[in-house]
Amino acid sequence: MDTNAFFEDLLTRTRLDGRYRTFAQLERIAGAFPRARWHRPDGGSQEVTVWCSNDYLGMGQHPEVLAAMHETIARSGAGTGGTRNISGTVREHVALEQELAGLHGKEAALLFTSGWISNLAALGTLGRLLPDCAIFSDALNHNSMIEGIRRSGAERFIFRHNDVAHLEELLGSVDPARPKIIAFESVYSMDGDVAPIAAICDLADRYGAITYLDEVHAVGMYGSHGGGIAEREGLADRISIIEGTLAKAFGVIGGYVAGPALLIDVIRSFAESFIFTTSLCPHLAAGALAAVRHLRQSGGERSLQQAAVARLKAALAAEGLPVARGSASHIVPLMVGDAHLCRAISTALLEEHGIYVQPINYPTVPVGQERLRITPTPFHDEGHIRKLVSALVSIRARVGWGEPKKAAA
Amino acid sequence: MDTNAFFEDLLTRTRLDGRYRTFAQLERIAGAFPRARWHRPDGGSQEVTVWCSNDYLGMGQHPEVLAAMHETIARSGAGTGGTRNISGTVREHVALEQELAGLHGKEAALLFTSGWISNLAALGTLGRLLPDCAIFSDALNHNSMIEGIRRSGAERFIFRHNDVAHLEELLGSVDPARPKIIAFESVYSMDGDVAPIAAICDLADRYGAITYLDEVHAVGMYGSHGGGIAEREGLADRISIIEGTLAKAFGVIGGYVAGPALLIDVIRSFAESFIFTTSLCPHLAAGALAAVRHLRQSGGERSLQQAAVARLKAALAAEGLPVARGSASHIVPLMVGDAHLCRAISTALLEEHGIYVQPINYPTVPVGQERLRITPTPFHDEGHIRKLVSALVSIRARVGWGEPKKAAA
Repeated sequence: MDTNAFFEDLLTRTRLDGRYRTFAQLERIAGAFPRARWHRPDGGSQEVTVWCSNDYLGMGQHPEVLAAMHETIARSGAGTGGTRNISGTVREHVALEQELAGLHGKEAALLFTSGWISNLAALGTLGRLLPDCAIFSDALNHNSMIEGIRRSGAERFIFRHNDVAHLEELLGSVDPARPKIIAFESVYSMDGDVAPIAAICDLADRYGAITYLDEVHAVGMYGSHGGGIAEREGLADRISIIEGTLAKAFGVIGGYVAGPALLIDVIRSFAESFIFTTSLCPHLAAGALAAVRHLRQSGGERSLQQAAVARLKAALAAEGLPVARGSASHIVPLMVGDAHLCRAISTALLEEHGIYVQPINYPTVPVGQERLRITPTPFHDEGHIRKLVSALVSIRARVGWGEPKKAAA
Repeated sequence: MDTNAFFEDLLTRTRLDGRYRTFAQLERIAGAFPRARWHRPDGGSQEVTVWCSNDYLGMGQHPEVLAAMHETIARSGAGTGGTRNISGTVREHVALEQELAGLHGKEAALLFTSGWISNLAALGTLGRLLPDCAIFSDALNHNSMIEGIRRSGAERFIFRHNDVAHLEELLGSVDPARPKIIAFESVYSMDGDVAPIAAICDLADRYGAITYLDEVHAVGMYGSHGGGIAEREGLADRISIIEGTLAKAFGVIGGYVAGPALLIDVIRSFAESFIFTTSLCPHLAAGALAAVRHLRQSGGERSLQQAAVARLKAALAAEGLPVARGSASHIVPLMVGDAHLCRAISTALLEEHGIYVQPINYPTVPVGQERLRITPTPFHDEGHIRKLVSALVSIRARVGWGEPKKAAA
């Protein structure tokens, strides 16, 4: 077959559907977050305000984080030069794993080069090794969890999003003797809603299931030490494995799981996606360690973020802009419901107002649920909020965008 | 079921088989490579010589690389705070992708957070999208290629390692109209042997197959600009996609693919493992860019490495130590053939001689092919070689290790 013609046709259809992605080219400015320099396709550049970063607390520019990175690069160089097993385990890995275990009140933790790999490795390995395992997965779980479950080969039962009754129905339908894993998130990335963790833990107890909680959109930001929603709700000890990221509130890159020493050792020993890959650079682990330590003892960033979130939500509501009703977190989804319109609003914000909010289209959200996903940080002040809301109001007046076709959760 | 008992039993069996992995904890010393500080399990520490690093050219401590990293951290901070699509594309990504495309004489390149993900994403996506695709895969392909092919769902045909006749037989067995991909490596990681690239390209032309070449153990080190074995042999233009890493000869972390703009755009647009993950930190791309640029114009590191390789191979041969016969590269496998013995030799080297060479056991190599995998770099001098060989000779005299049970390729 003519593979080129096939692929060209595929991309053409993607463009026609409004789903073809172009990446805005940025230049981050340490110390000036959320301002960044946008390098335009025409070759020019200008400063913009970023409203869609997952550097949720601005830790990516925190002096303690950057100092730890500089110091470690000067002392230990760039990469590790190996997999964890073959010359690639450094002191900084061990220290960070101990810190993360402590953060979540777990026996052990294990680092990965990304949160995506954490989920692939952990779910893929536990589900594959446990004979006849059944995995119960929330319908809105992140792609990386879905990929991990798929990789495991285990039978998958998808429960309706945050629907505990449906989860119980599915748990009850499976042979009690089978090993079970319930995989879910605390804060869902695109809607900002929060899982009923206690009720899910109750079911896990009743049906003898391992609980696997993805807290990537919560670690650093919730709980009095930044241990996530499970910490905030006093439930961390009822979760078997907490998965987190170093790339969002902790500002660097990488992912991890924390849990019982036995399960962590099994993942460490059998996950191919962990075994066969170069380990995280020493300075990245050092930078993340500085961020975790800082946010364990400092609540200031969390308070400022929550204040900015409340202010933004109120300002959007006051103008009747369609914030998704379910958001109970720092994630503020502004519903659009059409891919082309979503891109047009985003383009107008960027080109006319110097405000960068990436359109979120399929496959990140279902068709019909396209949105702008806004993420206030401690560094978004009253002035930033006023400018964003007024820009949105003026664009709405022109493009006539109102309620989404289909409301989000 | 009692999942804890199940997992404890699994780990016990792994220990009994000699396959349980413990990670040596190192502290890299920028400027002193291949010396590093080993933090012993007893809490003490000592300096050791590392002989098993994939920081093949020592670029992980190169001043230009470290300067670029420092400068970019100071200017742009730590992480990118987003996926490539959502605020996570920075200038450094674009510059590095252009540089890598240029290195391989390709139209485009795409960065990933690891080489492992590069293979998963590229093979997984192309094989999944092409209807009824057949993928022809070398029997010794790396785990990440196997995972990518598995993820694609495409039908897989495994040809015997480097066996062109067998590949042709398999190609001929498949409907000529089906899309085909031939996936192989240039330098095989554990044996150090080199693929018959020209002959494979001939077959690809004849049968209309896309060629996918993993050059992670070759980029930076072969070819007059470090473009890999394909560059050395003048074959880069006959390879559709070259996959490489930034974590070995380039000394940092991350992976990439380079190829025709159309195929790279398809991978960029459809690979979930690319779409749904935080992008590489700006300073990591900047450091890798400095390494690639340096090695494109400097052949000194390559010459010194090749000289060290030749000296080591000669010194081992002179003592009758069992180097795998097929090695035609910088990878020097010293065959042992038993997991417990392999670990014992490695332990003796480390504890008695201050020399660190990790044992390579299953699943990295098949059972019976356990080995020490030695990787000389430009920084391993005559003194390092003399000490290594004399340590091996003295250990051999004690443990009585000779030829492997089963010779490697």
